[in-house]
Amino acid sequence: NASDGCCLEALVPCTMYGHYTQDLGAYAKEEAARLREKSGRRPSATERSLSLENPDYDNGRCGKCCCMLRCKKFLIACVGEDWIFLILLGLFMGLISWGMDYGIDYCLHAQKWVYMSLENNVFLQYLAWVTHAVVLITFSAGFTQLLGSHAVGSGIPEMKTILRGVVLKEYLTCKTFVAKVVSLTSALGSGMPLGKEGPFVHIACLCAAMLSRFMSVFGNVYQNKTRYIEMLSAASAVGLASCFAAPIGGVLFSIEATGTVFLVRNYWRGFLAATISALFFRILAVWDTEEETITALFKTRFSTDFPFDLKELLAFAVLGIASGILGALFVYLNRLIFEFIRNQNFIKNFFMKRRLLYPVLVTILISTLTFPPGFGQFMGSQLTQKESLLSFFDNRTWSKPGTAEDYDYPDFSYAWKHPQVNVFVTLGLFVFMKFWMSALAITMPVPCGSFIPTFVIGAAFGRLAGECMAAWFPDGIYSDGTVYPIVPGAYAVAGAAALSGAVSHTVSTAVIIFELTGQISYLLPVMIAVILANVVAQSFQPSLYDSMIKIKKLPYLPELGWGHNEKYNIRVKDFMTRDVTYITLNCCYRDLQDVLQAGDHLKTLALLKSSQSRILLGSIERVELQAVVSQQLGRPRRLEYLRERAAAKRKRQSVVSHLSSEGISQKATLEVRFQVNQVWSSTPRRTSLCLQRLHSIAMAASLSLHDSSPRLQIEEWEESQLDEPVDFDNCKIEPAPFQLVEHTSLHKTHTMFSLLRLDHAYVTSIGRLIGMVSLKELQKAIDGSLEVKGAKVRPPMASLRDVRSSSCNIEIEATELHKLWDQYNSRSLPRKHLPSDSDEKS
Amino acid sequence: NASDGCCLEALVPCTMYGHYTQDLGAYAKEEAARLREKSGRRPSATERSLSLENPDYDNGRCGKCCCMLRCKKFLIACVGEDWIFLILLGLFMGLISWGMDYGIDYCLHAQKWVYMSLENNVFLQYLAWVTHAVVLITFSAGFTQLLGSHAVGSGIPEMKTILRGVVLKEYLTCKTFVAKVVSLTSALGSGMPLGKEGPFVHIACLCAAMLSRFMSVFGNVYQNKTRYIEMLSAASAVGLASCFAAPIGGVLFSIEATGTVFLVRNYWRGFLAATISALFFRILAVWDTEEETITALFKTRFSTDFPFDLKELLAFAVLGIASGILGALFVYLNRLIFEFIRNQNFIKNFFMKRRLLYPVLVTILISTLTFPPGFGQFMGSQLTQKESLLSFFDNRTWSKPGTAEDYDYPDFSYAWKHPQVNVFVTLGLFVFMKFWMSALAITMPVPCGSFIPTFVIGAAFGRLAGECMAAWFPDGIYSDGTVYPIVPGAYAVAGAAALSGAVSHTVSTAVIIFELTGQISYLLPVMIAVILANVVAQSFQPSLYDSMIKIKKLPYLPELGWGHNEKYNIRVKDFMTRDVTYITLNCCYRDLQDVLQAGDHLKTLALLKSSQSRILLGSIERVELQAVVSQQLGRPRRLEYLRERAAAKRKRQSVVSHLSSEGISQKATLEVRFQVNQVWSSTPRRTSLCLQRLHSIAMAASLSLHDSSPRLQIEEWEESQLDEPVDFDNCKIEPAPFQLVEHTSLHKTHTMFSLLRLDHAYVTSIGRLIGMVSLKELQKAIDGSLEVKGAKVRPPMASLRDVRSSSCNIEIEATELHKLWDQYNSRSLPRKHLPSDSDEKS
Repeated sequence: NASDGCCLEALVPCTMYGHYTQDLGAYAKEEAARLREKSGRRPSATERSLSLENPDYDNGRCGKCCCMLRCKKFLIACVGEDWIFLILLGLFMGLISWGMDYGIDYCLHAQKWVYMSLENNVFLQYLAWVTHAVVLITFSAGFTQLLGSHAVGSGIPEMKTILRGVVLKEYLTCKTFVAKVVSLTSALGSGMPLGKEGPFVHIACLCAAMLSRFMSVFGNVYQNKTRYIEMLSAASAVGLASCFAAPIGGVLFSIEATGTVFLVRNYWRGFLAATISALFFRILAVWDTEEETITALFKTRFSTDFPFDLKELLAFAVLGIASGILGALFVYLNRLIFEFIRNQNFIKNFFMKRRLLYPVLVTILISTLTFPPGFGQFMGSQLTQKESLLSFFDNRTWSKPGTAEDYDYPDFSYAWKHPQVNVFVTLGLFVFMKFWMSALAITMPVPCGSFIPTFVIGAAFGRLAGECMAAWFPDGIYSDGTVYPIVPGAYAVAGAAALSGAVSHTVSTAVIIFELTGQISYLLPVMIAVILANVVAQSFQPSLYDSMIKIKKLPYLPELGWGHNEKYNIRVKDFMTRDVTYITLNCCYRDLQDVLQAGDHLKTLALLKSSQSRILLGSIERVELQAVVSQQLGRPRRLEYLRERAAAKRKRQSVVSHLSSEGISQKATLEVRFQVNQVWSSTPRRTSLCLQRLHSIAMAASLSLHDSSPRLQIEEWEESQLDEPVDFDNCKIEPAPFQLVEHTSLHKTHTMFSLLRLDHAYVTSIGRLIGMVSLKELQKAIDGSLEVKGAKVRPPMASLRDVRSSSCNIEIEATELHKLWDQYNSRSLPRKHLPSDSDEKS
Repeated sequence: NASDGCCLEALVPCTMYGHYTQDLGAYAKEEAARLREKSGRRPSATERSLSLENPDYDNGRCGKCCCMLRCKKFLIACVGEDWIFLILLGLFMGLISWGMDYGIDYCLHAQKWVYMSLENNVFLQYLAWVTHAVVLITFSAGFTQLLGSHAVGSGIPEMKTILRGVVLKEYLTCKTFVAKVVSLTSALGSGMPLGKEGPFVHIACLCAAMLSRFMSVFGNVYQNKTRYIEMLSAASAVGLASCFAAPIGGVLFSIEATGTVFLVRNYWRGFLAATISALFFRILAVWDTEEETITALFKTRFSTDFPFDLKELLAFAVLGIASGILGALFVYLNRLIFEFIRNQNFIKNFFMKRRLLYPVLVTILISTLTFPPGFGQFMGSQLTQKESLLSFFDNRTWSKPGTAEDYDYPDFSYAWKHPQVNVFVTLGLFVFMKFWMSALAITMPVPCGSFIPTFVIGAAFGRLAGECMAAWFPDGIYSDGTVYPIVPGAYAVAGAAALSGAVSHTVSTAVIIFELTGQISYLLPVMIAVILANVVAQSFQPSLYDSMIKIKKLPYLPELGWGHNEKYNIRVKDFMTRDVTYITLNCCYRDLQDVLQAGDHLKTLALLKSSQSRILLGSIERVELQAVVSQQLGRPRRLEYLRERAAAKRKRQSVVSHLSSEGISQKATLEVRFQVNQVWSSTPRRTSLCLQRLHSIAMAASLSLHDSSPRLQIEEWEESQLDEPVDFDNCKIEPAPFQLVEHTSLHKTHTMFSLLRLDHAYVTSIGRLIGMVSLKELQKAIDGSLEVKGAKVRPPMASLRDVRSSSCNIEIEATELHKLWDQYNSRSLPRKHLPSDSDEKS
């Protein structure tokens, strides 16, 4: 529903990547006008379904009509069912994923083909190599620029924000969808170290949003906001599932990456849609005779009988810790690049003017360094990301020659076995170069994800560790008299899961890798590596998505972190803002306008009974209020006023001339309304006075009209309009805004904000508004408490609080009555209910 | 904290399985006395930590002491960290699981050994077979009876209730822990078709509760209720993980089975503890040289290169649907047995008197039927559950002879290849017999789960389906010119996951089976089967756990079900109860007692400013109020009164005799206080009057004492005490009870109740209490709306609502102002604030 489409995106400051340039005022007015227009012509879908609901409406119709209506009703009920929506969503996403993969493969093969066919001229080869990448990236960046700049980046940070309940309207439009799909295909086709999974989460949500808009033609259940968010939440699971054919991992990753809270009743939605989509994605691959049957995407063939020795667990743990450090470093590096570009004014201005220059420069740099006959030969650049991954998961040990096995699957290990340098150098170079390249590449203003790049780097890092282990224990590990060789591929698996988990702060990468490789025998080593990597990374840096949210200055809610117990002792009154913008029931339009023009950018405003009593009646959306004001002062009424003015002038002349011959009362209704009505309705004995005033007004009007200065007049009219009391009758008022009391703890507040996806809550005391907590305040309170890292220090806001409450009391949610009562009595507002109080006591 | 330990378990009616026999009144009084006693001697842990917090306290100490204190502080901070707790929990549970498995294996081998060694006498064999089972089950039932009847059953329903926020205190005691562990070991050792996983969830939670009680010696963070529940939630994941060595599946299953909502910030807790526990569990197995290295529990060896053909997906789908029907049937059958026993008065009384008879009879019946040389030979009874599972997951096709493979792992297929009947009959018999046996066995009053039995039945059912497929396509399925044989073991895997998923209404059984078998190549078929089984089962029956919750009449919150859109249109005012029990600030003890003795069994009571204004000040726990009343009327004060009475009598006599010789004022303080004080403090000129009254009182006292009728006197005293106004000063008042407004929708209410784990919420309008919603009302509202199954019928409670609001309006959370305002004005309570109102308007 349109009124939800709020101006929150307008508050996000103008950044280079994602342009939030719309002016708040202009946007709000536009929005308000649209809303008003809509309310003018009643919403058709609602009306239709209303007529369906109401059997009386169709009483006069014939039986056939009735039958058809019933059919339609049934159809609507069917389409309203979630599972149809989810299956459709799954099918669409499977198709899109497959189609995009097809396109990307085509691009990559084209690059390879051109490169191969120019084998006898290195310079031409280089030119072709670089040009291919530059052209595709430029197209991608330009297309995104042109169609929808919201398609830039991974999309997971934005989805996280949207699933938190914040409406970022432009992120879920059809234009963004087209921009994202086309640009992503070309960006990935360029061979840059970019990923597909993050944008795919966004694409799935876009798909769900569009589908639900389409389905809302049949039934209006799709217009319910709660349901809409539940569907988006399911869609974000589909994104990953259709990308990796990993339904379980997709669901879990989407829960971890995009949500802070998860309703178990949404669980099945995610699983259903994700399974359908993964299935369809793989069926398409089989149908295309790419594969014989449905198997894992990056199938591994490790031994299941003796996958690893217990002693190797230690090596996996070390790998996990190292991956964690690497992951934190990656997030840090990425933020550093972002901030460098943004904070250096010269660079910023330079690139702002030449928007396509930055991606072109980055692409040239990266593709030059990865040019296979050049430096790229030392880092396996002739392989695509997919081929690299397959080679890392290889069963054989590269550092040990002659361990050929009898499997006949594509062997990409040649890329790593350079004649001059050994495999450790190539792998090390790959990790180092790809590390900064990926961190740099994902800053380009094209749709791109960071999951696959970190996944590949992690796999290479793990492979390196595995090869080192294999070199260290060339004969494998002795156990119970038998010797078991070390499998470096398993380390690659663990490293991939650990690094991608560390960067995204998720544990479910472990599940994703099991589904990707089709093997689960390394369950425990991988779990250990992923958990340790998470522990390490989370203690140093926020996740890449949270880092992006901070960079893009999206409204976010930081996590509470691990075991900071002082959070249980901070109360709402310590961090709430007491300076709440509100409107009262008896305010006039001027007050309303002042409030709306004030700097406060909250989505909704509190409605109080009066500024004295401060009794909270409800909250009204800002857009609604904009609409009310613009209706009062808008063009139609202004025109009407001018028309009436002109008519009044004409009438005035006729009245003056025919005053004796015609009755005054007949004309009265046609006269200028806003002032005359008051005068007119008075008693007949004031008629002469009234006529005098009428005359003077009409004279003034004609004068001003003749003087052709309607501006002054309009201003006057506006002034008079602004002094009228606001008519809230057409306003939708939310009668149950979320309320907290002063004593609610920070922990509980955070939980409620996460759980209920709030962006603000009013703090009331016995019905009276005393403050407000918005995401901003909560952020500040949490960040404040997080900065104090030591164990059991004084609670961060202790200075604001009395000594007694800052002591660590266990019964945190209870207080003593007299304190409560004192507070109630000492409330700053004048308590004048004494008569009734005494009444009550009697 | 003890005050949470509420009397909710006392309200659950007396059932045969789990004895909730404690009388509410008695229990509450006991509890109140305990509480009061506690508040007498200040809680030591808190005090100690307070002294640690406050540096001034230790100013006078020496430096060494300071250092030690700092060390202690650091230690406490460390122990307060979650990860230490979680690692300890994981280790403990791994150890317990391994130990129990050891014990169970021992018992089962003993049975087999005795049975084998008596090979030449069938009757003795039979006797040994049955006796073994009967003895162990009897011991298990008896031990449970003796130590803690709360250990009966699976424990998941109770944990679900506890994690919903309801305090069932007796379920998490040390006694219950011992009872559960010992009884479960012996029950499973008997060879009955019982499971280990459900009780293990309970055991893990018991372990966590005990551990957190132990850890609270070091720091009081463990006494925080929110944290406690978060820890329990992690523990329930550990239960399954340590049981199956399936950390991911365990976490997911615990989320699905025990929660309605899930905080992502708890995710890592579950994963950490579950991984540690699974790891330790498997390491112990390796250390015991049972295994060579860590591998899956029920390792399968299916081909990964071509696991299944696309056409087989259809067969898997059919298997899923059939499993769903079977699962629903299982839940229904189980409930039928329960209800039959409970509702037939004769049977109920018979078994209530002879508590051990029922398990003995059931055991004899089942073990007779499964006696291997008897009927058991047709259903593979010589195998344990574990061996059966291994045989079902076998690679080979039983119905096709001569497909020997070169793997050398234990072959249990001999049990199914009976010389007289073919494999279809044995499998079919097994499924049919085990089906009702399992449904019957889990009704025995011993600790037992239903997961493994349904898992085994599902595997057998799947195997049957697979063998049928293999018989139908004896040469396998042609695809691309190659023939691929059908693997019945894969169907067994899918069947196991599907049936257990259908019974427990979870999707994560798919993950569990991947972790159990160590193979994930059948990802999509298994997912499809599980999802379809869930869809079918959920449309027919509640989950087994919900069914148990209903049977045990635990307070629960039903799920909203799929896509019932009318839920968005039911408001709080339609289902709230307007008849709220409350206390007012100026009430006397008599009112309090009346309220407490009334039939309403809610945990907390609303505190209003006065019954006229109905302004909600907060809520007080029932236990607190019990304490206040019992303090006022309790034994100490009564004794004091009697003592004073007696003293007064003596003094009275001495006063009368020595009135002239001694000053009256010296004695005054020793006199009867409650009446005399008033009199005494009056002016000296009323002394004579006073003395007369004193005399008469003392006379009456001595008279009544001599007449040995203090009862009458005490009653009189009590009456006078009851008329005093309540002193709430020592009462802990929760100043922020959760509040809803009338317009909150059922959907939102349900979400909030699930999310915030509420058991009641007050409905207020501008600070005034107008109603209440408790779990009961919510249950009724949901059940009411669930009964109406058809598409888009009239909302269930439409008759209660005005026509306008029942029409399907989209903006469900908003209303028009004048309605709100009218409601505010027409509130039934007398609005006498006119002076202040006019004040506000001026």
